[in-house]
Amino acid sequence: MHVVMDISVSPFGVGLSFSQYIAACHEIFEKAGLKTNLHAYGTNVEGEWDTVFAAVKQCHETLHEMGVVRLTSTIKAGTRIDKEQSMTDKIDSVQKRM
Amino acid sequence: MHVVMDISVSPFGVGLSFSQYIAACHEIFEKAGLKTNLHAYGTNVEGEWDTVFAAVKQCHETLHEMGVVRLTSTIKAGTRIDKEQSMTDKIDSVQKRM
Amino acid sequence: MHVVMDISVSPFGVGLSFSQYIAACHEIFEKAGLKTNLHAYGTNVEGEWDTVFAAVKQCHETLHEMGVVRLTSTIKAGTRIDKEQSMTDKIDSVQKRM
Amino acid sequence: MHVVMDISVSPFGVGLSFSQYIAACHEIFEKAGLKTNLHAYGTNVEGEWDTVFAAVKQCHETLHEMGVVRLTSTIKAGTRIDKEQSMTDKIDSVQKRM
Repeated sequence: MHVVMDISVSPFGVGLSFSQYIAACHEIFEKAGLKTNLHAYGTNVEGEWDTVFAAVKQCHETLHEMGVVRLTSTIKAGTRIDKEQSMTDKIDSVQKRM
Repeated sequence: MHVVMDISVSPFGVGLSFSQYIAACHEIFEKAGLKTNLHAYGTNVEGEWDTVFAAVKQCHETLHEMGVVRLTSTIKAGTRIDKEQSMTDKIDSVQKRM
Repeated sequence: MHVVMDISVSPFGVGLSFSQYIAACHEIFEKAGLKTNLHAYGTNVEGEWDTVFAAVKQCHETLHEMGVVRLTSTIKAGTRIDKEQSMTDKIDSVQKRM
Repeated sequence: MHVVMDISVSPFGVGLSFSQYIAACHEIFEKAGLKTNLHAYGTNVEGEWDTVFAAVKQCHETLHEMGVVRLTSTIKAGTRIDKEQSMTDKIDSVQKRM
Protein backbone atom coordinates (compact mmCIF):
# COMPACT_ATOMS: atom_id res chain seq x y z
CA MET A 1 0.00 0.00 0.00
CA HIS A 2 1.46 3.29 -1.22
CA VAL A 3 1.03 6.33 1.03
CA VAL A 4 1.53 10.07 0.66
CA MET A 5 2.08 11.46 4.14
CA ASP A 6 2.58 14.82 5.74
CA ILE A 7 4.31 14.96 9.13
CA SER A 8 4.99 17.84 11.50
CA VAL A 9 6.86 17.16 14.74
CA SER A 10 6.30 19.19 17.92
CA PRO A 11 9.14 18.57 20.40
CA PHE A 12 8.53 19.70 23.99
CA GLY A 13 11.02 20.27 26.77
CA VAL A 14 13.93 21.33 24.56
CA GLY A 15 13.50 25.03 24.03
CA LEU A 16 12.08 26.93 21.11
CA SER A 17 14.22 25.94 18.14
CA PHE A 18 13.05 22.77 16.45
CA SER A 19 15.25 22.80 13.37
CA GLN A 20 17.74 20.16 14.54
CA TYR A 21 14.89 17.76 15.34
CA ILE A 22 13.16 18.33 12.02
CA ALA A 23 16.50 17.80 10.27
CA ALA A 24 17.08 14.53 12.20
CA CYS A 25 13.69 13.16 11.09
CA HIS A 26 14.30 14.34 7.55
CA GLU A 27 17.56 12.40 7.49
CA ILE A 28 15.73 9.26 8.72
CA PHE A 29 13.21 9.57 5.89
CA GLU A 30 15.96 10.09 3.33
CA LYS A 31 17.99 7.12 4.58
CA ALA A 32 14.87 4.95 4.34
CA GLY A 33 14.79 5.75 0.62
CA LEU A 34 11.57 7.76 0.86
CA LYS A 35 10.74 10.77 -1.27
CA THR A 36 10.58 13.90 0.87
CA ASN A 37 9.68 17.55 0.51
CA LEU A 38 10.27 19.99 3.34
CA HIS A 39 7.83 22.89 3.70
CA ALA A 40 7.28 25.62 6.30
CA TYR A 41 4.93 23.54 8.50
CA GLY A 42 6.04 19.94 8.01
CA THR A 43 7.47 17.46 5.55
CA ASN A 44 5.77 15.53 2.75
CA VAL A 45 6.90 11.90 2.63
CA GLU A 46 6.00 9.29 0.01
CA GLY A 47 6.54 5.54 -0.14
CA GLU A 48 5.34 2.14 0.97
CA TRP A 49 3.18 2.20 4.11
CA ASP A 50 5.45 -0.03 6.24
CA THR A 51 8.63 1.82 5.30
CA VAL A 52 7.02 5.21 5.96
CA PHE A 53 5.64 4.29 9.38
CA ALA A 54 8.80 2.46 10.46
CA ALA A 55 10.58 5.75 9.74
CA VAL A 56 8.02 7.70 11.79
CA LYS A 57 8.64 5.37 14.74
CA GLN A 58 12.40 5.75 14.32
CA CYS A 59 11.92 9.52 14.29
CA HIS A 60 10.14 9.40 17.67
CA GLU A 61 12.81 7.08 19.13
CA THR A 62 15.67 9.22 17.81
CA LEU A 63 14.22 12.50 19.06
CA HIS A 64 13.68 11.04 22.53
CA GLU A 65 17.32 9.88 22.48
CA MET A 66 18.29 13.47 21.56
CA GLY A 67 16.59 14.67 24.73
CA VAL A 68 13.07 15.52 23.57
CA VAL A 69 10.92 14.76 26.61
CA ARG A 70 7.51 14.91 25.02
CA LEU A 71 6.75 14.66 21.32
CA THR A 72 3.62 15.02 19.23
CA SER A 73 3.63 14.18 15.54
CA THR A 74 0.77 15.53 13.48
CA ILE A 75 0.32 13.29 10.47
CA LYS A 76 -1.89 13.16 7.40
CA ALA A 77 -1.72 9.78 5.67
CA GLY A 78 -3.40 9.35 2.28
CA THR A 79 -4.01 6.12 0.38
CA ARG A 80 -6.12 5.48 -2.72
CA ILE A 81 -7.04 2.49 -4.84
CA ASP A 82 -8.13 4.13 -8.10
CA LYS A 83 -4.72 5.22 -9.34
CA GLU A 84 -1.13 5.80 -8.39
CA GLN A 85 -0.62 9.45 -7.48
CA SER A 86 2.72 10.88 -6.42
CA MET A 87 3.39 14.06 -4.44
CA THR A 88 4.43 15.72 -7.72
CA ASP A 89 1.20 14.63 -9.45
CA LYS A 90 -0.82 16.20 -6.64
CA ILE A 91 0.93 19.55 -6.97
CA ASP A 92 0.80 19.48 -10.79
CA SER A 93 -2.95 18.83 -10.84
CA VAL A 94 -3.57 21.93 -8.72
CA GLN A 95 -1.14 24.15 -10.61
CA LYS A 96 -2.91 23.34 -13.90
CA ARG A 97 -6.04 24.93 -12.40
CA MET A 98 -4.37 28.15 -11.30
CA MET B 1 6.96 2.85 23.32
CA HIS B 2 3.54 3.85 24.61
CA VAL B 3 1.50 6.23 22.43
CA VAL B 4 -1.64 8.30 22.88
CA MET B 5 -3.09 8.88 19.44
CA ASP B 6 -5.98 10.74 17.92
CA ILE B 7 -7.25 9.62 14.51
CA SER B 8 -9.89 11.05 12.22
CA VAL B 9 -10.64 9.27 8.93
CA SER B 10 -11.84 11.11 5.82
CA PRO B 11 -13.26 8.61 3.30
CA PHE B 12 -13.76 9.90 -0.25
CA GLY B 13 -15.85 8.45 -3.07
CA VAL B 14 -18.53 6.91 -0.85
CA GLY B 15 -21.05 9.65 -0.24
CA LEU B 16 -21.51 11.89 2.75
CA SER B 17 -22.13 9.54 5.66
CA PHE B 18 -18.95 8.31 7.29
CA SER B 19 -20.37 6.60 10.35
CA GLN B 20 -20.05 3.01 9.08
CA TYR B 21 -16.36 3.61 8.26
CA ILE B 22 -15.63 5.20 11.61
CA ALA B 23 -17.40 2.28 13.30
CA ALA B 24 -15.33 -0.23 11.28
CA CYS B 25 -12.06 1.40 12.40
CA HIS B 26 -13.31 1.62 15.96
CA GLU B 27 -13.98 -2.13 15.92
CA ILE B 28 -10.43 -2.77 14.65
CA PHE B 29 -8.97 -0.72 17.53
CA GLU B 30 -11.16 -2.53 20.06
CA LYS B 31 -10.25 -5.98 18.70
CA ALA B 32 -6.58 -5.04 18.92
CA GLY B 33 -7.08 -4.54 22.67
CA LEU B 34 -6.49 -0.80 22.51
CA LYS B 35 -8.18 1.75 24.74
CA THR B 36 -10.46 3.98 22.68
CA ASN B 37 -12.64 7.04 23.13
CA LEU B 38 -14.89 8.26 20.35
CA HIS B 39 -15.49 12.02 20.10
CA ALA B 40 -17.21 14.28 17.57
CA TYR B 41 -14.13 14.74 15.35
CA GLY B 42 -12.14 11.52 15.74
CA THR B 43 -11.16 8.78 18.11
CA ASN B 44 -8.57 8.73 20.89
CA VAL B 45 -6.55 5.49 20.90
CA GLU B 46 -3.97 4.40 23.46
CA GLY B 47 -1.51 1.51 23.53
CA GLU B 48 1.85 0.22 22.33
CA TRP B 49 3.18 1.97 19.21
CA ASP B 50 3.36 -1.14 17.01
CA THR B 51 -0.13 -2.35 17.97
CA VAL B 52 -1.62 1.09 17.41
CA PHE B 53 -0.07 1.62 13.98
CA ALA B 54 -0.77 -1.94 12.82
CA ALA B 55 -4.42 -1.15 13.60
CA VAL B 56 -4.23 2.12 11.64
CA LYS B 57 -2.91 0.18 8.61
CA GLN B 58 -5.65 -2.39 9.00
CA CYS B 59 -8.20 0.42 9.14
CA HIS B 60 -6.97 1.78 5.76
CA GLU B 61 -6.99 -1.72 4.22
CA THR B 62 -10.46 -2.51 5.55
CA LEU B 63 -12.01 0.77 4.40
CA HIS B 64 -10.60 0.30 0.90
CA GLU B 65 -12.10 -3.21 0.88
CA MET B 66 -15.42 -1.62 1.89
CA GLY B 67 -15.26 0.54 -1.23
CA VAL B 68 -13.59 3.72 0.00
CA VAL B 69 -11.64 4.93 -3.03
CA ARG B 70 -9.50 7.56 -1.41
CA LEU B 71 -8.76 7.88 2.30
CA THR B 72 -6.96 10.43 4.44
CA SER B 73 -6.29 9.77 8.11
CA THR B 74 -5.41 12.77 10.22
CA ILE B 75 -3.39 11.56 13.18
CA LYS B 76 -1.81 13.07 16.29
CA ALA B 77 0.66 10.67 17.92
CA GLY B 78 2.11 11.58 21.31
CA THR B 79 4.99 9.88 23.13
CA ARG B 80 6.88 10.97 26.24
CA ILE B 81 9.77 9.65 28.30
CA ASP B 82 9.26 11.47 31.60
CA LYS B 83 6.23 9.58 32.84
CA GLU B 84 3.42 7.26 31.86
CA GLN B 85 0.33 9.28 31.04
CA SER B 86 -2.96 7.71 29.97
CA MET B 87 -5.82 9.35 28.09
CA THR B 88 -7.70 9.56 31.37
CA ASP B 89 -4.75 11.25 33.11
CA LYS B 90 -4.65 13.88 30.37
CA ILE B 91 -8.32 14.74 30.77
CA ASP B 92 -8.13 14.68 34.57
CA SER B 93 -5.20 17.09 34.67
CA VAL B 94 -7.15 19.65 32.63
CA GLN B 95 -10.39 19.22 34.55
CA LYS B 96 -8.59 19.92 37.83
CA ARG B 97 -7.76 23.39 36.40
CA MET B 98 -11.30 24.24 35.38
CA MET C 1 -22.20 29.33 8.85
CA HIS C 2 -22.28 26.67 11.55
CA VAL C 3 -18.99 24.89 12.29
CA VAL C 4 -17.95 21.82 14.26
CA MET C 5 -14.31 22.28 15.20
CA ASP C 6 -11.63 20.31 16.95
CA ILE C 7 -8.70 22.23 18.46
CA SER C 8 -5.53 21.05 20.14
CA VAL C 9 -3.07 23.65 21.47
CA SER C 10 0.69 23.00 21.65
CA PRO C 11 2.34 25.61 23.91
CA PHE C 12 6.14 25.89 23.66
CA GLY C 13 8.57 27.47 26.06
CA VAL C 14 6.58 26.83 29.24
CA GLY C 15 7.56 23.35 30.35
CA LEU C 16 5.82 20.03 29.92
CA SER C 17 2.45 20.48 31.60
CA PHE C 18 -0.15 22.00 29.32
CA SER C 19 -3.26 21.58 31.45
CA GLN C 20 -3.51 25.19 32.63
CA TYR C 21 -3.33 26.43 29.03
CA ILE C 22 -5.92 23.95 27.80
CA ALA C 23 -8.16 24.97 30.71
CA ALA C 24 -7.72 28.67 29.85
CA CYS C 25 -8.82 28.09 26.24
CA HIS C 26 -11.70 25.92 27.41
CA GLU C 27 -12.91 28.76 29.60
CA ILE C 28 -12.74 31.15 26.63
CA PHE C 29 -14.88 28.80 24.55
CA GLU C 30 -17.39 28.38 27.38
CA LYS C 31 -17.64 32.13 28.00
CA ALA C 32 -18.28 32.64 24.28
CA GLY C 33 -21.36 30.45 24.68
CA LEU C 34 -19.96 27.66 22.50
CA LYS C 35 -20.65 23.98 23.03
CA THR C 36 -17.47 22.17 24.06
CA ASN C 37 -16.30 18.65 24.74
CA LEU C 38 -12.84 17.99 26.14
CA HIS C 39 -11.09 14.77 25.06
CA ALA C 40 -7.60 13.35 25.55
CA TYR C 41 -6.09 15.07 22.50
CA GLY C 42 -8.05 18.28 22.09
CA THR C 43 -11.43 19.92 22.48
CA ASN C 44 -14.50 19.75 20.25
CA VAL C 45 -16.15 23.14 19.83
CA GLU C 46 -19.41 23.92 18.06
CA GLY C 47 -21.08 27.18 17.07
CA GLU C 48 -21.22 29.99 14.57
CA TRP C 49 -18.02 30.39 12.50
CA ASP C 50 -17.24 33.96 13.57
CA THR C 51 -17.80 33.26 17.27
CA VAL C 52 -15.69 30.10 17.13
CA PHE C 53 -12.73 31.71 15.37
CA ALA C 54 -12.86 34.88 17.48
CA ALA C 55 -12.48 32.54 20.47
CA VAL C 56 -9.53 30.75 18.83
CA LYS C 57 -7.81 34.11 18.34
CA GLN C 58 -8.52 35.07 21.96
CA CYS C 59 -7.06 31.74 23.05
CA HIS C 60 -3.78 32.53 21.24
CA GLU C 61 -3.69 36.05 22.69
CA THR C 62 -4.43 34.84 26.21
CA LEU C 63 -1.85 32.04 26.16
CA HIS C 64 0.84 34.46 24.95
CA GLU C 65 -0.14 36.80 27.82
CA MET C 66 0.26 33.82 30.19
CA GLY C 67 3.86 33.42 28.99
CA VAL C 68 3.57 30.92 26.15
CA VAL C 69 6.35 31.96 23.77
CA ARG C 70 5.39 29.89 20.77
CA LEU C 71 2.02 28.30 20.11
CA THR C 72 0.65 25.97 17.48
CA SER C 73 -3.07 25.21 17.29
CA THR C 74 -4.05 22.15 15.28
CA ILE C 75 -7.60 22.63 14.09
CA LYS C 76 -10.17 20.67 12.13
CA ALA C 77 -13.06 22.85 10.99
CA GLY C 78 -16.10 21.20 9.40
CA THR C 79 -18.99 22.89 7.62
CA ARG C 80 -21.80 21.36 5.56
CA ILE C 81 -24.78 22.64 3.58
CA ASP C 82 -26.96 19.52 3.37
CA LYS C 83 -28.13 19.41 6.98
CA GLU C 84 -27.54 20.69 10.49
CA GLN C 85 -25.37 18.22 12.37
CA SER C 86 -24.29 18.75 15.95
CA MET C 87 -21.35 17.14 17.77
CA THR C 88 -23.84 14.86 19.51
CA ASP C 89 -25.41 13.83 16.18
CA LYS C 90 -21.97 12.87 14.86
CA ILE C 91 -21.23 10.60 17.81
CA ASP C 92 -24.74 9.10 17.81
CA SER C 93 -24.55 8.18 14.13
CA VAL C 94 -21.33 6.22 14.72
CA GLN C 95 -22.54 4.55 17.89
CA LYS C 96 -25.62 3.24 16.08
CA ARG C 97 -23.23 1.33 13.81
CA MET C 98 -21.23 -0.29 16.59
CA MET D 1 -0.71 39.02 15.49
CA HIS D 2 1.31 37.41 12.72
CA VAL D 3 0.49 33.77 11.88
CA VAL D 4 2.11 31.05 9.82
CA MET D 5 -0.63 28.60 8.86
CA ASP D 6 -0.93 25.34 7.02
CA ILE D 7 -4.30 24.42 5.53
CA SER D 8 -5.52 21.30 3.78
CA VAL D 9 -9.10 21.18 2.50
CA SER D 10 -11.09 17.93 2.25
CA PRO D 11 -14.17 18.45 0.04
CA PHE D 12 -16.86 15.75 0.26
CA GLY D 13 -19.69 15.01 -2.13
CA VAL D 14 -17.92 16.18 -5.30
CA GLY D 15 -15.96 13.18 -6.53
CA LEU D 16 -12.31 12.32 -6.16
CA SER D 17 -10.47 15.21 -7.77
CA PHE D 18 -9.88 18.12 -5.44
CA SER D 19 -7.55 20.24 -7.52
CA GLN D 20 -10.14 22.83 -8.62
CA TYR D 21 -11.13 23.41 -4.97
CA ILE D 22 -7.55 23.70 -3.79
CA ALA D 23 -6.88 26.14 -6.64
CA ALA D 24 -9.95 28.21 -5.69
CA CYS D 25 -8.75 28.56 -2.09
CA HIS D 26 -5.25 29.34 -3.28
CA GLU D 27 -6.62 32.17 -5.38
CA ILE D 28 -8.50 33.55 -2.35
CA PHE D 29 -5.28 33.57 -0.30
CA GLU D 30 -3.37 35.25 -3.12
CA LYS D 31 -6.06 37.91 -3.63
CA ALA D 32 -5.97 38.63 0.11
CA GLY D 33 -2.29 39.54 -0.32
CA LEU D 34 -1.08 36.60 1.75
CA LYS D 35 2.15 34.72 1.14
CA THR D 36 1.41 31.16 0.03
CA ASN D 37 3.29 27.98 -0.76
CA LEU D 38 1.52 24.97 -2.22
CA HIS D 39 2.81 21.52 -1.23
CA ALA D 40 1.58 17.96 -1.80
CA TYR D 41 -0.67 17.87 1.27
CA GLY D 42 -1.79 21.44 1.79
CA THR D 43 -0.82 25.07 1.48
CA ASN D 44 1.35 27.22 3.74
CA VAL D 45 -0.12 30.69 4.27
CA GLU D 46 1.45 33.61 6.10
CA GLY D 47 0.08 36.98 7.21
CA GLU D 48 -1.94 38.86 9.79
CA TRP D 49 -4.30 36.66 11.83
CA ASP D 50 -7.51 38.44 10.82
CA THR D 51 -6.67 38.49 7.13
CA VAL D 52 -5.65 34.83 7.15
CA PHE D 53 -8.78 33.59 8.92
CA ALA D 54 -11.12 35.83 6.89
CA ALA D 55 -9.64 34.09 3.83
CA VAL D 56 -10.20 30.65 5.40
CA LYS D 57 -13.87 31.54 5.94
CA GLN D 58 -14.16 32.80 2.38
CA CYS D 59 -12.62 29.54 1.18
CA HIS D 60 -15.34 27.53 2.97
CA GLU D 61 -18.09 29.81 1.60
CA THR D 62 -16.72 29.67 -1.94
CA LEU D 63 -16.32 25.89 -2.00
CA HIS D 64 -19.87 25.41 -0.75
CA GLU D 65 -21.04 27.76 -3.54
CA MET D 66 -19.07 25.56 -5.99
CA GLY D 67 -21.12 22.56 -4.86
CA VAL D 68 -19.02 21.06 -2.08
CA VAL D 69 -21.60 19.59 0.29
CA ARG D 70 -19.36 18.87 3.26
CA LEU D 71 -15.95 20.37 3.91
CA THR D 72 -13.26 19.80 6.50
CA SER D 73 -10.25 22.09 6.71
CA THR D 74 -7.28 20.79 8.64
CA ILE D 75 -5.29 23.75 9.90
CA LYS D 76 -2.09 24.35 11.84
CA ALA D 77 -1.83 27.94 13.07
CA GLY D 78 1.42 29.11 14.65
CA THR D 79 2.06 32.34 16.50
CA ARG D 80 5.08 33.41 18.56
CA ILE D 81 6.08 36.45 20.60
CA ASP D 82 9.86 36.05 20.76
CA LYS D 83 10.67 36.96 17.17
CA GLU D 84 9.27 37.42 13.70
CA GLN D 85 9.70 34.23 11.71
CA SER D 86 8.56 33.85 8.12
CA MET D 87 7.83 30.62 6.23
CA THR D 88 11.17 31.05 4.47
CA ASP D 89 13.01 31.49 7.79
CA LYS D 90 11.50 28.22 9.04
CA ILE D 91 12.68 26.25 6.01
CA ASP D 92 16.12 27.92 6.02
CA SER D 93 16.74 27.08 9.67
CA VAL D 94 16.10 23.37 9.01
CA GLN D 95 18.12 23.25 5.79
CA LYS D 96 21.15 24.68 7.61
CA ARG D 97 21.06 21.57 9.82
CA MET D 98 20.91 19.05 6.97
